[in-house]
Amino acid sequence: MEFTTAEIASLLNGELVGNQSQKVNNIARIDEATEGSISFLSNPKYENYVYTTEASAIIVNKKFSPKQKVKPSLILVDDPYISFTTLLEEYQKLNSLKKSGVESPSFIAASSRTSYNIYRGAFSYIGEHCNIGENVKIYPHTYIGDNVTIGNNCIIYPGVKIYDDTCIGNYVTIQAGAVIGSDGFGFAPQQDGTYKTIPQTGNVIIRDHVDIGANTVIDCATLGSTEIKQGVKLDNLIQVAHNVEIGENTVIAAQSGISGSSKIGKNSVLAGQVGIVGHVELADKTTVAAQSGVGKSWKKEGTLLLGSPAIEHKDATKAYVVYKKLPQIQKKVEELEKKLISLSNSETGHER
Amino acid sequence: MEFTTAEIASLLNGELVGNQSQKVNNIARIDEATEGSISFLSNPKYENYVYTTEASAIIVNKKFSPKQKVKPSLILVDDPYISFTTLLEEYQKLNSLKKSGVESPSFIAASSRTSYNIYRGAFSYIGEHCNIGENVKIYPHTYIGDNVTIGNNCIIYPGVKIYDDTCIGNYVTIQAGAVIGSDGFGFAPQQDGTYKTIPQTGNVIIRDHVDIGANTVIDCATLGSTEIKQGVKLDNLIQVAHNVEIGENTVIAAQSGISGSSKIGKNSVLAGQVGIVGHVELADKTTVAAQSGVGKSWKKEGTLLLGSPAIEHKDATKAYVVYKKLPQIQKKVEELEKKLISLSNSETGHER
Amino acid sequence: MEFTTAEIASLLNGELVGNQSQKVNNIARIDEATEGSISFLSNPKYENYVYTTEASAIIVNKKFSPKQKVKPSLILVDDPYISFTTLLEEYQKLNSLKKSGVESPSFIAASSRTSYNIYRGAFSYIGEHCNIGENVKIYPHTYIGDNVTIGNNCIIYPGVKIYDDTCIGNYVTIQAGAVIGSDGFGFAPQQDGTYKTIPQTGNVIIRDHVDIGANTVIDCATLGSTEIKQGVKLDNLIQVAHNVEIGENTVIAAQSGISGSSKIGKNSVLAGQVGIVGHVELADKTTVAAQSGVGKSWKKEGTLLLGSPAIEHKDATKAYVVYKKLPQIQKKVEELEKKLISLSNSETGHER
Repeated sequence: MEFTTAEIASLLNGELVGNQSQKVNNIARIDEATEGSISFLSNPKYENYVYTTEASAIIVNKKFSPKQKVKPSLILVDDPYISFTTLLEEYQKLNSLKKSGVESPSFIAASSRTSYNIYRGAFSYIGEHCNIGENVKIYPHTYIGDNVTIGNNCIIYPGVKIYDDTCIGNYVTIQAGAVIGSDGFGFAPQQDGTYKTIPQTGNVIIRDHVDIGANTVIDCATLGSTEIKQGVKLDNLIQVAHNVEIGENTVIAAQSGISGSSKIGKNSVLAGQVGIVGHVELADKTTVAAQSGVGKSWKKEGTLLLGSPAIEHKDATKAYVVYKKLPQIQKKVEELEKKLISLSNSETGHER
Repeated sequence: MEFTTAEIASLLNGELVGNQSQKVNNIARIDEATEGSISFLSNPKYENYVYTTEASAIIVNKKFSPKQKVKPSLILVDDPYISFTTLLEEYQKLNSLKKSGVESPSFIAASSRTSYNIYRGAFSYIGEHCNIGENVKIYPHTYIGDNVTIGNNCIIYPGVKIYDDTCIGNYVTIQAGAVIGSDGFGFAPQQDGTYKTIPQTGNVIIRDHVDIGANTVIDCATLGSTEIKQGVKLDNLIQVAHNVEIGENTVIAAQSGISGSSKIGKNSVLAGQVGIVGHVELADKTTVAAQSGVGKSWKKEGTLLLGSPAIEHKDATKAYVVYKKLPQIQKKVEELEKKLISLSNSETGHER
Repeated sequence: MEFTTAEIASLLNGELVGNQSQKVNNIARIDEATEGSISFLSNPKYENYVYTTEASAIIVNKKFSPKQKVKPSLILVDDPYISFTTLLEEYQKLNSLKKSGVESPSFIAASSRTSYNIYRGAFSYIGEHCNIGENVKIYPHTYIGDNVTIGNNCIIYPGVKIYDDTCIGNYVTIQAGAVIGSDGFGFAPQQDGTYKTIPQTGNVIIRDHVDIGANTVIDCATLGSTEIKQGVKLDNLIQVAHNVEIGENTVIAAQSGISGSSKIGKNSVLAGQVGIVGHVELADKTTVAAQSGVGKSWKKEGTLLLGSPAIEHKDATKAYVVYKKLPQIQKKVEELEKKLISLSNSETGHER
């Protein structure tokens, strides 16, 4: 990316003060910016950086009046933070436009079809009877099995593996190394101590606007579908077992795991390294604190859970506060016991 | 897959009541079945679905007598659940037959050999001096290093990475993205605070009938072998460090981790997100509850462990029950203290 | 690898007793060695194995005098353990020399350049404007995006995915399936409960002598860089979120996760399955015990943390010791209460 300050000012509907043809090729925080970077000043406590930064341009509030000489060009706007976000989004958009066409060698079965403005990276693989929408980017080393459908405007980063029969909606982004539709972990114990594999014949459904993190795994259902509903955001290295259902707009942080057949409500938040056992249900707007282990269903909306096993946050916190004082409490109990014995003796003595 | 109800009835040794040439192309739960699906009724509490389902065929007990009119074809058998399982297995078998032959481009060193009925997907890689058995499926983007042996009837899903010198038995299935034989985490601290890499020259041995989950990692041994014994089932995103040994028919759920040189006995169960420290030994038939952290050896067969650090389940449960009441206990202790003081004062008063 | 005992004795500056032309093709522990192996005797408690081992050669202290007849050739050295380590390193070096040149098909954009003694495995991918140093090994199925720089003497194992703009130093080793530079997990909540993606335009910087484990994920920064400093060792399946900074020579064990913008000091140790929340700072030489969850900054050098939430190790241990006795303590409190009541009653009685 390389733009002039004039081009950026025009994009942001801003007024440019300074060099019109200053080249900008990077976006940076004001305390880290180097030559060629554009930055922004939103929080007044960073104002001093305006006078010392190496940045080539800074987006500032139109009411900003410098107290010293300023070296970078200034772009004056109504709200510098929103303008900066706009700039980031434009940058991202441009970046994503870069990739299109088909690199060679890549593999696509004759029975599959792609649409307008596809990118298929080198060494990407598309099996039989797939249907891939418009503006989809399939990066190198991506594997797409048979009978997979992918909607429009999806980005499948390198090395993603998508098993047979997976359905993916529109505006879905999957980061590198994620696995979608692997066989669920189903084994029936036999009399002799061995296990027999239970065939996993279901699939995975991923609705619109879902984001899936790097090396995250979503297993297919035993029967039916594992379903990730609209707007769900999954971080990296997450485990989603067979027949799980994750509700709309639920956000799950890295390294959490959800066991088979559990249902997470919509608009919920699971922090990092959370574990959910199988066959439970969490109501909408449940929040689970980091490293908690949820061992049963919680059906009241808006519950805040903490601990392993997880209990309501306020109870967990109360218990934990006392936990840290356990050595003192133990000592106190021992003292009470001694006093009581002594008192009891003196009492007895008194009565004697 | 597409069959007629007559074909399925014949496969299951069942009696068909209804349309002989009804086409079936899907397997589903009775509460989720749509047209073209076959389902089953085993648990009587689902009987109502028989009268309302969209399924095209249902497998029922031969003694089943409908209380209302039934739309789907019925296949009468001795045990509907077992028949359904048989059907799933047949479906799975057919599915796995689909892949065979060599797709192009794929890579195999001249010094390596494969056997009867191999599938080598596009972009799969086989290094030098490998020996691959009969009926092995190697999906696209699989990497197999040098001197690797793989037995018969194995399925290696897309993007699996198998390092040099790995030995894999028969009937082994490895899900997408798993890494077998990566360098163990061995670094010797130096005087200046840096670390020197300890060469990891051993390998990984995987015995017959082992299943390995997606994105799971098994490190090679420093010397000798990391060994996964016969019938072991590993879920997704599991960490198995160098020189670990996992006993026959042990089952480990997702996101658990076993540190270097530890030995897990046979017929054991580790639930999800369990951690085992290095250089410990767990006896046969050990069970470790989810999110527990095992910090020492447990040598008694059949031990049930819970907690972090893990202790015997019954002790952990007893302590936890009290833990939740800590705030009340603390209050009680404070009350006792006050009473005791007051009593002690009155006593003193009395004596005065 | 195949050497004669004479060649090995010469490499180790040792004296050979026995067969000069004995072939050796494997390195093994003395209790596991088979024919063709070389092993060593350092710890006297293993001496008995010298008389029973199948090894073809053993490295022993030059002062060692056998008490029985010894079958293997002996190589006499000053310090058998150090000699053995030397041998391992030589073996590793030879092994890593094996791979060089360019396998076909592989992909490299015309605008990228590699240097002296490159290995580019089949199905490896290098995007635009990359700069790859000397003696770099890029294994099959590795993806390297645009504008990536890699220094000298790096090994990138199969299936590693490196996003655009990543900077990698010298002597860096990345195990299979690791993902470097995936989009950070940044989503701004909207009024309607949905989330808007915050563009992640930063990169990842990996300094010299860093080792990264299999299937580990390091996200790029939102702005600026996620930075892994010199000498850091990361195990498998680790999560490093956006804008994290890990200090020099810090070692992190498998399945740990560090949330966004946190800074870990240098020469620190995080054991397995540790979680660190976002936006905290840990001082140099911090040690965090396995499965601990760090919820705030700890700024004193050399702090040892334990628990979830993590507190200082000595406090956590004290509390835990009492925790295990909670049922007894509860019982004691109940007894005290009863005694107190009875005492109080008798007191009252006495006074009546």
